[in-house]
Order: sequence, then structure tokens, then C-alpha cells
Amino acid sequence: MAKGASISGFPEWLPEQRAVEQKIIDTVKRVFELHGFIGIETCAVETGASLLKKGETSKEIYLLSRLQEVGHESDTPVSERLGLHFDLTVPLSRYVVEHSGQLTFPFKRWQIQKVWRGERPQSGRFREFYQADIDVVGNGDLPEHYEVELPFVMCEALEGLHRFGLPKATIHANNRKLSEGFYRAIGLADIEGVLREVDKLDKIGPDEVEKLLTEECGANEEQAEACLRLADIVTADPDKLCSRFDALCDSCSIDRASKGYALAQQGLDTICTIIRQSAQVRPGAIIADCKIARGLDYYTGSVYETFIDGVPELGSICSGGRYDNLVSKGSRKYPGVGLSIGLSRLLSYLLGTVGAEANRQSPASVLVAVWNEDARDASNSIASRLRSRGICADVAPQANKIGKQIKYASKLGIPYVWFPADPDAETGSDAAADSVKNIVTGEQSPADPVSWLPDTVYAQQAIVINKE
Amino acid sequence: MAKGASISGFPEWLPEQRAVEQKIIDTVKRVFELHGFIGIETCAVETGASLLKKGETSKEIYLLSRLQEVGHESDTPVSERLGLHFDLTVPLSRYVVEHSGQLTFPFKRWQIQKVWRGERPQSGRFREFYQADIDVVGNGDLPEHYEVELPFVMCEALEGLHRFGLPKATIHANNRKLSEGFYRAIGLADIEGVLREVDKLDKIGPDEVEKLLTEECGANEEQAEACLRLADIVTADPDKLCSRFDALCDSCSIDRASKGYALAQQGLDTICTIIRQSAQVRPGAIIADCKIARGLDYYTGSVYETFIDGVPELGSICSGGRYDNLVSKGSRKYPGVGLSIGLSRLLSYLLGTVGAEANRQSPASVLVAVWNEDARDASNSIASRLRSRGICADVAPQANKIGKQIKYASKLGIPYVWFPADPDAETGSDAAADSVKNIVTGEQSPADPVSWLPDTVYAQQAIVINKE
Repeated sequence: MAKGASISGFPEWLPEQRAVEQKIIDTVKRVFELHGFIGIETCAVETGASLLKKGETSKEIYLLSRLQEVGHESDTPVSERLGLHFDLTVPLSRYVVEHSGQLTFPFKRWQIQKVWRGERPQSGRFREFYQADIDVVGNGDLPEHYEVELPFVMCEALEGLHRFGLPKATIHANNRKLSEGFYRAIGLADIEGVLREVDKLDKIGPDEVEKLLTEECGANEEQAEACLRLADIVTADPDKLCSRFDALCDSCSIDRASKGYALAQQGLDTICTIIRQSAQVRPGAIIADCKIARGLDYYTGSVYETFIDGVPELGSICSGGRYDNLVSKGSRKYPGVGLSIGLSRLLSYLLGTVGAEANRQSPASVLVAVWNEDARDASNSIASRLRSRGICADVAPQANKIGKQIKYASKLGIPYVWFPADPDAETGSDAAADSVKNIVTGEQSPADPVSWLPDTVYAQQAIVINKE
Repeated sequence: MAKGASISGFPEWLPEQRAVEQKIIDTVKRVFELHGFIGIETCAVETGASLLKKGETSKEIYLLSRLQEVGHESDTPVSERLGLHFDLTVPLSRYVVEHSGQLTFPFKRWQIQKVWRGERPQSGRFREFYQADIDVVGNGDLPEHYEVELPFVMCEALEGLHRFGLPKATIHANNRKLSEGFYRAIGLADIEGVLREVDKLDKIGPDEVEKLLTEECGANEEQAEACLRLADIVTADPDKLCSRFDALCDSCSIDRASKGYALAQQGLDTICTIIRQSAQVRPGAIIADCKIARGLDYYTGSVYETFIDGVPELGSICSGGRYDNLVSKGSRKYPGVGLSIGLSRLLSYLLGTVGAEANRQSPASVLVAVWNEDARDASNSIASRLRSRGICADVAPQANKIGKQIKYASKLGIPYVWFPADPDAETGSDAAADSVKNIVTGEQSPADPVSWLPDTVYAQQAIVINKE
């Protein structure tokens, strides 16, 4: 957590940290646009009715009331009140249905915005944070190849963040059809229940999960064990995935002609395609992980979670999947595939643990010095000329002693100080012409505001890693 | 107002409109950074206590409550509850005080974020909108030259919006010291009251204001008339400003040795400097307008409002001023000068009246066609190669008939369709090599994904003006 966030759970960054956030957003956005995703922005609020559709997160919603309504908030039913969106999927659903006549389907959209969750304050939990989402939404149907391609886009986006110190990330893919088909094939009926318990594996371990499966989901010992063995399949190799699944089916004596098996096979095919293509382009970037169960209650096909290598405590930083039932308008369905990066958590890691920050607070490359207040106009003109050529320039706030002006530049990280020709200097002397000093290297040389350029390395604010 | 905003007062834009908003934000931000302003972002919420400091706008605040608190909201006093910020000045004040030890002063910051006001829904009033702010905040004191320079930065930012169809804007400047000093010099004491009534000039006209000045502010007929004559001074010419003010003082028999006159003269000097410098660089961009009174209750020096030439109904699109008393920490004061552009209102005008929109919905320049689903990999590789050279590329969603794929590109406004070498084509035939078709001009030619470039005019999404 950054220092000085005075309102618990609402992170705020210093200028040199905010610059990292901005560059991360720009990087991710650029990848999304290279892939033809269209940027939209939705409003911060939705009706309570929309927000409460997903029961699970209902407790985390922030509702709004106008100051005038204080004391009478409850006159309006929650479903009709406005609340802040807690993700970007609910707004997308509404947006797509509202504007379906004006959009082209499949609609590929990116969206990077803040979302809010009224969680109890606890370490590492934000109540306000950025999400960066991509989704493809079809009108009526949606080709399965998007389930293969979308995680690749996220791989590329996350790779773009390596230069800010983000270690390699691995996307773990599973498929609702594989899990559900397998559970049905071994004779289980409470699919949601089994998924809910399997999801607890990382937290409570296999013994406890096995117990819960028998106690809560009607599984016998063999069935519970089979569920755990499925969850145990984690591999980047499509052939191994198939052979291990096959062996598991054999040992459970699964009927290859059953509907459950056919469904599982569909899911398996999709995961295989994903990791096979991944192996060609980005070996190891995406692996099959049959234990992934979170969200499988509303995802209907592929499901993804992403972990940073060596930083499991950060949890999944990019999750998503295929959902066929989230958006509909009458009998018309809008199936989608989408993934969402939790940008703020990731940023918090880069700032706090990795030590990423901007190499300077100010975007300016040059501070134009001011000899005296009467000569401020001359300094302003020099700055104008530099700006007209795309060079960010600031002007000294006061005509202090030059040492003080240089110190101002230095504190802001501005690498160059420009000395306008001194109006009182002797003609022909050095001080009678403009000069510019690199206050990092100490080099000083004559310069003309219509042609001078900063050295490339000092031209732009850049992100550096300050490992402790 | 855009079509389809389903939640009253919370505007939402179609992709080709959102692209205009994004370009406006980018343009304005670029100007701010060229001038050395530092970007920050503050959280969306403040405590009720902070938000309620400015009594006037208190009715417009949105308070938050967690869903679990419904029915018990009033258990927490409003001052301790969280509310959404209604401007970017209150958050800046808090940010500066909180981080004063880590910031460099004068602190020049830009901030472009959404703000929220719980107003009663009415035409043209947004409850959620973007503001684009620049402020310079000093630690202890702040040189007056920023009062001259900041409106120039805004002039430049607004000029940058001409290419999106924004007509010329004129900044109207006044000064609290001029008004207050003059009122005191003619013997009035209820300065806030006089300012409040003068602010109503545009709405109710001079006769009504004169009446209110005598009835509510203890002015006699002569004093009220003098107030109106001061408000009547509007000029871009610094000499005329001085001579007209001088003549007014003469006719009111003002004592040149009085404190009131000295204060007025200070204010007059600042306005003169502003419009004199403006006349040199941007003739007519800034004019003196002694009727501007809004905000003078908390501004202490210069005050600015900005109107679009020929579009008075839009009201002021960029307002601000100098404030000496907004931010403090113990006995330490942080005086500031700032201006704020109401971006959403301006955008709404550009979209609705001017007809600005993106020339295409998709950022992609190229759609790579897909001959059949087995050949999708080949199309994906071509797209990857294009993207690696910075060309935004999409791939056809389905291996439909080529006419249908071209139609998909056309609906999204993607100018080029790429035809991969047809695997079934005769060797040596045209179809055996990649080619690309400009679907706007109909031109088609062989192309190689490692070297082909789109024509400049089709390379980027651009904003066009569709005058009706």
C-alpha cells in the first residue's frame, strides 16, 4: 500500500508513482488496440437491480444517495437506487443490450476504468481499483476461437509490463465443460456444489475438500477422490493432458458413450487447442490447470486465472472466461469471452515490492531560468519555442539565485536548465547568448531554442526499477 | 445529450463518440505536460467533512453507503461518511496537505477525472462528467505571474480542440481586488452581497440587480448605479480598461488615497498585465470583463470564465481563479491559481451540435480475411506480423464468404482487407500470394506483412466533422 492514502482502501499515488500507473494503462491499451479492440467507457453507476443480479458480490456494493435524501434513503427500494459498478462486465452487458442496434458484432471492446467494492478494509484489499478488460461479445453466437485468442492478447499485454519490473506471468486455463462433464460421467449431480468445494483446494487442502465433497455434495469416497485427481492435472503439454485425462477416465471406468464424457471431451479439446497454440508462439505462457474452479458457476466454457511466477501471494492478476448466459435481451443471447486484469493490485506490487517509479516527477525536460522578473517574458518566449517543437518546458517560478533555480529543477528531476542570454552581459561574451546545461552530467553548451534537442535518454520521463 | 444514456444524467457514448472524448483528453493533457504540469489522480471519494466545507454546493453531493448499512446509514454522521468528489479542487487541497513533504513547490499539477453532482436531472445537466484541471499551488506564497500564465495554458489547450470543431473561445478575466476595492471606495461594506447580486446580471438584467443592490446590500441609488457601471466595463484593450476605470472613479469622486482605491488598483494592474500579454501573443483570446462575479466569494485575486464565441448558451466552459484561503495546514497556507475545463459539456456540444465523430469505430487499419477455419492460424500470423510493426490489425470473426468479411470491415470502418495467399490457388497465380485491398478506393495490390504500410490517411482513426 502506498504511503499517505488517507482514506482506507482508496489508494492514491505520488506523482512518480502515478506516472507508472499511467504508463501501465497506456501499454495495456496499446496492445488491446493493436488487436482491434474498441475502447468504450461506461458510467460509474448502475441500478441496484443490475448490480444485484450476481448474488455473491452483493455485499460489496456501494449505494449512492443524494445529501438531501439522508434519513430517507430507505424510501427507495435498493433495486431502484444507484450503486457504483464493482466490475466492468455488468456495465458491458447493459451497454451491449442498450446499443445493440449501433454496434457491430462480434463486438470486441476494451475498457480500463476504476471499479468500487465496499469491502471491509484489510491489508492489500482495495475499495477502489482499476480494471483493464477485454471482451468479445457475439450477437446470438460466438465462435470458439476467441476462447483461444483472448488469453494470448492478455499474455502480450502482460509481457508489455516486463519493462516495469513485472515477472513472467502464467495463465492457467480450465474449462467448465471438462469439469462438469467429468463430474456427471462419474455420477455426481450437484455440479455447482462440487465446483465450490474444489475451489477451496488452495486454501484448505485436499483432505478437507474430500471431506466436504462427501458431506456436502453427495459424493462417495471414490467419486471425491476422482474429483481431486482431476484437479491434480496441471500441464503445459497437450498430449500429457489428454493421456492423463484418459488414464483417469479408465481408472474411473467412465462410459465413453455417456453424455458426460462427450461434454468433457469438448472442454478438453478447447484447452488442448489453447495450450498447443501457446506452445508454438509463447511456450509455457498458458498451461492447463484442472483445479481452476472459481467463476465456473457462471462461466460456461473456458476459464482463466493468471499468476505471477514466484509471487503466488498476489493471487490471480488476470481472470476471466466464456459466459453464454450473462447478457440477453428477450430471447436473443449475447455470449461473450472476456478477461480482466486487476491493474491496481499489480501496480501496488510493482511500486511496493519491485520499486518501479518515474525517473522524474515533472514531464518537463527543460527548466528555463529567469534572470530577473522583468526578463520573465524572454524566458517564457524561449519555453514557448521549445514547446512548439514538442519539448516539455517549465519556467523557473521565481528569479532567485541561479543555484536555487537549478535546485528546483533538480528536485523535480528536470535534466536541463536553460540560461537565456543575459541582457546585462558584455556583447560577444558567453553569457550574451543562450546556453543549456545538463544538470545531471554538468555539461553546458550554447543552444538555440529553434533547433536544440535534448539527448534521447533525457527527452522523456521514463520508468526505472529501484531494487532495494 | 447522447442517445441511449439509460441512467439520467450519466452520459455514455458510442465507440465513435468515445474516440472523440479520448482524443480531447489526450490533446488537453499534452498541452498541460508541454507546460511542465505534473499529472496526478486522486481517489473518487472524500469525507463528508471535506466536501461540506463549501456550503454552497453541499446539496449536490452523492454520499456512499455499503449495502450492508442500508437502513442504518444515519448511524454515521454525514461528516464521517464518504461521498463522491464534486470537483477536483477539494481533492487537490487534501492531496497537497497530505503529501506536502514529498512534493516540490510551487506544485504544478494537471488532473483529468470524472466528478459527480447529485443534481436534479434536467436537460444539459450531467451528474457525472469529466473535468480537466490545472493548478499551481505554492507553499506559503505564490508569485502573481501564474495568474497571468495559467489562462494562457488553457487558451492553448482550447486552441488544440479547434480541429475537433470547437469554435474560438474567449477568456473573460476579472479580479476580486478590483471589485472589492471599488465597492469599498464608494462606501459599500457588504462585499459578498454585492458580488452575489452582480452575478445575476446575465439572468435578471441591470434593473433588477440595481433593485436588489439597494434592497439587500444597503446601497443607495448612486452606489448601485456605480456597481453597474463597473460591471459594464468589457474590453480587450488595457489602455481603455484603465481610462474607463479612471473615468468611473472620477465620476464617483473616489478618493485616490483610500485603501479601497489602492486595492482596486492592484487588481487592475493584474488584469492589465494579463490582457496586455494576451494582446501580444493571442490577440483577443483574453479580455477584461468586470461583470464576472461568480466564485469571487472564495477567489481572492484573478477570476476567469470562458465562453465559446457564438455559443453563449453553453455557459462558461473553463473557469477558475486565484485562491489564497482554500488550502492550509496549521498556520501554513498553500495559495493557488487554477482553471478547470468542463470537458463533458464541451464534448456534448462537439458531438451533438458540431457533429464530431471518429471516422471509424475500430482502431484497426486492417482486417485479415480467413479463407476457412483451418487456415485461421495463417491469418493470425499475418495479423501478428503487422501488429509487431505497430499496425492495428483485426482478423475476420468467421470464415464466411469474402463479401461478408469485407462487409464486417466496412461496418467497423476498417479501410484495408488483407487476403492471405490462398492455399488452394495455382502456383504463380495472383491468389497464390498475399494481397491487400483498400475497400474505400477499391485498389488492390500484392503485399508482404513484413514490409507493407497503410497509406498515411488510412493509418489512424481520425476525428471528422459531420456538419448536417
